[in-house]
Amino acid sequence: MRKIEICLTPDLLFLHSLEGKIVVVVDILRATSCMVTAFAHKVEKIIPVATVEECKQLQQQGLIAAAERGGEKVEGFDIGNSPFSYTENSYAGHTIAMTTTNGTQAIVASQKAETIVIGAFLNINTVAQYLVSKDNDVVVVCAGWQGNINMEDTLFAGALAQILVGTHTWENDACYLATTAHEVAKNDYMLYLKECSHFKRLMRFGLEQDVRFCLKHDVYDVLPYMKEGYLTIKKP
Amino acid sequence: MRKIEICLTPDLLFLHSLEGKIVVVVDILRATSCMVTAFAHKVEKIIPVATVEECKQLQQQGLIAAAERGGEKVEGFDIGNSPFSYTENSYAGHTIAMTTTNGTQAIVASQKAETIVIGAFLNINTVAQYLVSKDNDVVVVCAGWQGNINMEDTLFAGALAQILVGTHTWENDACYLATTAHEVAKNDYMLYLKECSHFKRLMRFGLEQDVRFCLKHDVYDVLPYMKEGYLTIKKP
Repeated sequence: MRKIEICLTPDLLFLHSLEGKIVVVVDILRATSCMVTAFAHKVEKIIPVATVEECKQLQQQGLIAAAERGGEKVEGFDIGNSPFSYTENSYAGHTIAMTTTNGTQAIVASQKAETIVIGAFLNINTVAQYLVSKDNDVVVVCAGWQGNINMEDTLFAGALAQILVGTHTWENDACYLATTAHEVAKNDYMLYLKECSHFKRLMRFGLEQDVRFCLKHDVYDVLPYMKEGYLTIKKP
Repeated sequence: MRKIEICLTPDLLFLHSLEGKIVVVVDILRATSCMVTAFAHKVEKIIPVATVEECKQLQQQGLIAAAERGGEKVEGFDIGNSPFSYTENSYAGHTIAMTTTNGTQAIVASQKAETIVIGAFLNINTVAQYLVSKDNDVVVVCAGWQGNINMEDTLFAGALAQILVGTHTWENDACYLATTAHEVAKNDYMLYLKECSHFKRLMRFGLEQDVRFCLKHDVYDVLPYMKEGYLTIKKP
C-alpha cells in the first residue's frame, strides 16, 4: 500500500516530507477549480505566481493575467478567480499568469515534491486514477484561507482519501478528520458548508453560481501538473 | 454571544489573537488529563516547563519532577505522564515540575491569553461552566503531537464547542470540523480513535488503561489555571 497524508493548511507543510511524493494542491473556492476549468477549455499554460506584482510584470510582458485577493478580482487585471471566465473558450491557446490569495501560494510552497498536480471536485476522479497509476506516496495540500484551515478544501481531501482507501493507507490524523467530515457532508455540500468562513464570504459577494459549480464532481477529465514553473496538461 | 475558536495545533497559534481571551489548553493523552487528576488528588501546584533541562533543574532544587517524551517517562525523573501516578494522593500537598512532549509546550505558547485554563474530558463540564460564567471569548488550543493535529484533542475541542453552542458562536472552520468529528465519535471514542496516531502509540506501550481513563467525562470538578508561572486550583 502507498501512503496518503493530508496537510490541512500550507502553514503545516513543514511537518511533511515531500521528496519523492506526489502533491495534490487543492483550493476548491476557487483557484484550482479555475485551473481545471481553464485547461478543459483549451488554455495552453498557467504560470502560478505568489504575488500580485509578479503577476503584473507578466501581464506587462503580454500575458493574460488573472489576479484575486480576498475573494475579489484585483483592479487592472484581465481575469479574477471565477471558473466561468474560461467556459466560453475565451482564452483557448493562451498562457495565463495567475495569482490568488491561497491556491497559487500553496503550489509555490510545494515545490519539493516530485510532482505537483492540481485537484478539484471538478476533476477528482481523474486525479484519483492518476494517483492509483503511480507508485508514489501522496500528500494532499489544502490551500486553506490565509493560513487557516478551511472546510471545502478539507472535504475534497477527505473525498480523495475515501476514493483511495483500497490503495493508499491514511497516514495522519487529518485523514480521519477529513474523511469523517466528507462522510457527513457528502449528500449536501451546500448545506454542510453554510456556516463556513470562505463559503459565506463568496456568498456575500453574490458568487453562489461559482460555488455551486466548484462543488460538482467530475465535470472535466483534465489533470493539470507543474512542469518547469508552469501548469500544463500536455504530456511531453 | 461570545466567540469560540479552535486552534488544532500550537503551530497555528500565530493565526489567533489571544489578548483578552480565555485559552483552554488540551492534551488529552495525557498531559492535561494528568494535571486535572493531580489537582483532584491534592497536588498543590504544577510548574509546566517546556524543556527536560528546566524540569531537571527544578528537580535538583527539591521539587517532585514529572517528565515525558515520545509517550514514555524520561529516565531520572520521579513521574512520567500517567494520571494513575496521582490517584493514591501520593503527591498531596506537593509542587510538581512537569514537562511533556506537547501539553506543557502548548501552555507556554499561550501566555498572551488573559487566562489559561486546563481542559480534559475528565473536567469538561467544569471548564464549560467556567467559560459560560465569563464574558471573554475563548480559544481552545489543542496540543497535538509535535506540531501535528491529533484526533483526541480535536474531539475534546468539538465536545466543548457543542456544550457551548447556546452561548458561544463557532468562529472558525476548525469548530465545524471538530464538532462533526465529535458527533460521529461520541458514542464510542475508543472505536473511533483506533487508527489514530497517538492512540496507537500509547496502546503499543501497553497504556490502554491510561487511555480509557483519559476519555472519561467529568470524573473531577477541578479547574486548573495558570497564575504567575504555575498551575493551581486555589482561588486568590
